[in-house]
Amino acid sequence: MELKWTRKDLLSLKELSPEEIVFILDTAAEFKKVSERNVKKVPALRGKTVVNFFVEPSTRTRVSFELAEMRLSADVINVQASTSSLKKGETLLDTIKNLEALQVDLFVMRHSAPGAQEFIAQHTKCGVVNAGDGAHSHPTQALLDIFTIREKFGRINGLKVTILGDILHSRVARSNVWGLLKLGAEVTVAGPSTVVPKEFESIGVRVCHNLRDAVKDADVVNVLRIQHERLNASFFPSDSEYATFFGLTPAVLNYMRPGALIMHPGPINRDVEISSAVADGKQSVILEQVTNGLAVRMAVLFLVAGCVKK
Amino acid sequence: MELKWTRKDLLSLKELSPEEIVFILDTAAEFKKVSERNVKKVPALRGKTVVNFFVEPSTRTRVSFELAEMRLSADVINVQASTSSLKKGETLLDTIKNLEALQVDLFVMRHSAPGAQEFIAQHTKCGVVNAGDGAHSHPTQALLDIFTIREKFGRINGLKVTILGDILHSRVARSNVWGLLKLGAEVTVAGPSTVVPKEFESIGVRVCHNLRDAVKDADVVNVLRIQHERLNASFFPSDSEYATFFGLTPAVLNYMRPGALIMHPGPINRDVEISSAVADGKQSVILEQVTNGLAVRMAVLFLVAGCVKK
Amino acid sequence: MELKWTRKDLLSLKELSPEEIVFILDTAAEFKKVSERNVKKVPALRGKTVVNFFVEPSTRTRVSFELAEMRLSADVINVQASTSSLKKGETLLDTIKNLEALQVDLFVMRHSAPGAQEFIAQHTKCGVVNAGDGAHSHPTQALLDIFTIREKFGRINGLKVTILGDILHSRVARSNVWGLLKLGAEVTVAGPSTVVPKEFESIGVRVCHNLRDAVKDADVVNVLRIQHERLNASFFPSDSEYATFFGLTPAVLNYMRPGALIMHPGPINRDVEISSAVADGKQSVILEQVTNGLAVRMAVLFLVAGCVKK
Repeated sequence: MELKWTRKDLLSLKELSPEEIVFILDTAAEFKKVSERNVKKVPALRGKTVVNFFVEPSTRTRVSFELAEMRLSADVINVQASTSSLKKGETLLDTIKNLEALQVDLFVMRHSAPGAQEFIAQHTKCGVVNAGDGAHSHPTQALLDIFTIREKFGRINGLKVTILGDILHSRVARSNVWGLLKLGAEVTVAGPSTVVPKEFESIGVRVCHNLRDAVKDADVVNVLRIQHERLNASFFPSDSEYATFFGLTPAVLNYMRPGALIMHPGPINRDVEISSAVADGKQSVILEQVTNGLAVRMAVLFLVAGCVKK
Repeated sequence: MELKWTRKDLLSLKELSPEEIVFILDTAAEFKKVSERNVKKVPALRGKTVVNFFVEPSTRTRVSFELAEMRLSADVINVQASTSSLKKGETLLDTIKNLEALQVDLFVMRHSAPGAQEFIAQHTKCGVVNAGDGAHSHPTQALLDIFTIREKFGRINGLKVTILGDILHSRVARSNVWGLLKLGAEVTVAGPSTVVPKEFESIGVRVCHNLRDAVKDADVVNVLRIQHERLNASFFPSDSEYATFFGLTPAVLNYMRPGALIMHPGPINRDVEISSAVADGKQSVILEQVTNGLAVRMAVLFLVAGCVKK
Repeated sequence: MELKWTRKDLLSLKELSPEEIVFILDTAAEFKKVSERNVKKVPALRGKTVVNFFVEPSTRTRVSFELAEMRLSADVINVQASTSSLKKGETLLDTIKNLEALQVDLFVMRHSAPGAQEFIAQHTKCGVVNAGDGAHSHPTQALLDIFTIREKFGRINGLKVTILGDILHSRVARSNVWGLLKLGAEVTVAGPSTVVPKEFESIGVRVCHNLRDAVKDADVVNVLRIQHERLNASFFPSDSEYATFFGLTPAVLNYMRPGALIMHPGPINRDVEISSAVADGKQSVILEQVTNGLAVRMAVLFLVAGCVKK
């Protein structure tokens, strides 16, 4: 590999070059082999401390990162907003500067405010990995999605990928779009017009409000979770209304290419945005995405840690 | 030892043969020696990941398992319901399948629904250790109780064991009864008739509603905790009413055999179900139970981990 | 070093001799060197278990201790009151005796009741480190403050140290006073008369209700955090009232000695008790205090662990 990784932070895929994205994917492929061994640990981050700083609650992403950190032999500290000094009125930056003064090395950070991680990254020598900032960006989720697609098809370039659901509020959708376009995929975003406005065309994707048109020629359909809190916000009338018009059912699958992949970032709402028969069917790679997430996060942590100078 | 352990799960004592129970106890006796050394760790589970998945809150049992896991050198992840995806509507099985996809090895699981662990165990390749499912089963608690009795008397067969308290709602009582009967003890269950109905006789135990009759000839009295939430449920009129008729006091102790053991699974309500003088007295083995719990849990985790095929 | 450390507990600085305090500071200086190495871990507490038992919430202190424990290679268990058996009505001592029966070695304990840790220390063979008990004592915070002063001036003896804020309710203030007086500093406590009563003079400090008088000749000003809950308790009229009369601003700094140190135990309320320009200015050692806290806590844990006999 010619490329040298030079970033101490992973904030979004928007800022990465295609070569950098491919470099992460290749590194993740190496780490995936480690995860298939009987003893899954490597000493890459021994003596380093990673703080999982989650201001929004999360189990799935936090556990995935925590396992990745353990398998790299890092020391792990979990800080959750509900128990943190944030309640006492300290600024976010002061909290981070304090943790930095405790000589930690990396922050894995989730925050409800878009851009919070970027702001922090500019003010700390520690590395910062974005684990989700509001509706803005969730780069490791998009990387694991792209890793999974590449593993199945051997490439991203030229593939037709449809992202289905509430695109407007989804950091997963945004991050996937940025990454997929950089690697040459043709991307369609689809869903109700309240959450998939025509304006998305300006970023280079096809916008589609009809489910069958959206998925007919797709190589991959990435189904987003319906956030129940949106249901009360007049974006969708109800669960069953959404399921009827945009749920991915076996009937819809019959319209699609036979080898198309079905993806979902989880957690799934069974029989709302995706039928159980589809989620558990043989085109589904939902659980493989989870497994690949571990390898991708090990790769990201490993790469950024190598650029932290203290 | 001739017996080979073949189970990837420990769900209840009801399903185990007497030989299997003895095998766990013998293994625990080996691990107890480890706990008495200056350095208490062994590398038995190095590189393995254990998820403590507690859907009901617990400190005592969770900490005991967590210490057992650390002493086996496992990597430990704690997931609590209040912070988990369960809130977002994901099914329990999907949460578990996701954790399995992260290549963890064992689940230690507490859940309020009887049978939840058995259901999960059937659907995962990971090992499952039941850390309490509703009022149904709490096998490691019963094993540590039985371990403690065996350590003191050198046997279980032929001993008279009285379990005193709210038998109806107690997973500890049920698990003890199953285990003790298999190993040949004579078991009495005793307490108010509202929570110790005559129907218990059908499972092979003596039912007794008079405290002194219940304990007079006992070699062991295992006193259960009064759950305060039951007091509002019309099972007992009040704490003091219970203490008067069923509290184990020094006066009651005088009616008993001099060498009888006093046990309690904790946490104790001092001067409700047990007097302080009895709980702290020289017949009490309450804190030894806690210490033995560590050895028993190390043994269980070690045995089931050896049967997880991935 | 001639002195041998003989205490299994660190409860307050009041009970320590000047020689013992100096011994901790010297040990901390050694551990600070460890923290500056690339691999920051030492195997001093390998195989030992430390329980962080926090009955009051804390992020800052808990994370500092947790990192100190990890860097000493201890096994770490976190127990928080909100999830503990305390809710079920078990006594504090029973909870601790149970944890002791699980063969842990040290408790790092925070509790809202003054003296709770001293009571526990008398009843357990484990070591107990006080991480704050009500308004009484917070010895490791005072030690890290004193360590920081000594590092800058090379001595404590003869220095003029002003502690500014709500002295009445502050365990940090009390602990600093005890430690500083033992090492020969001249201590002034300053703030509104509602929270800095004249009676403090009886413990050997100067009491001052005028900010400029209090700081004019000081070598060190240690600014305490304003607890917002006190604002509703009629001690202070409002944030801005406090800031006007007792806030440490650049204008106040101009009255002070040029090389005076500005300290704060954190978390800071910017522009209430301290101006941002002062907190972030070049006389401020606030973040160095945090870094030194790690070394001090490593030293304390290391010393008391050496005196635990089990």
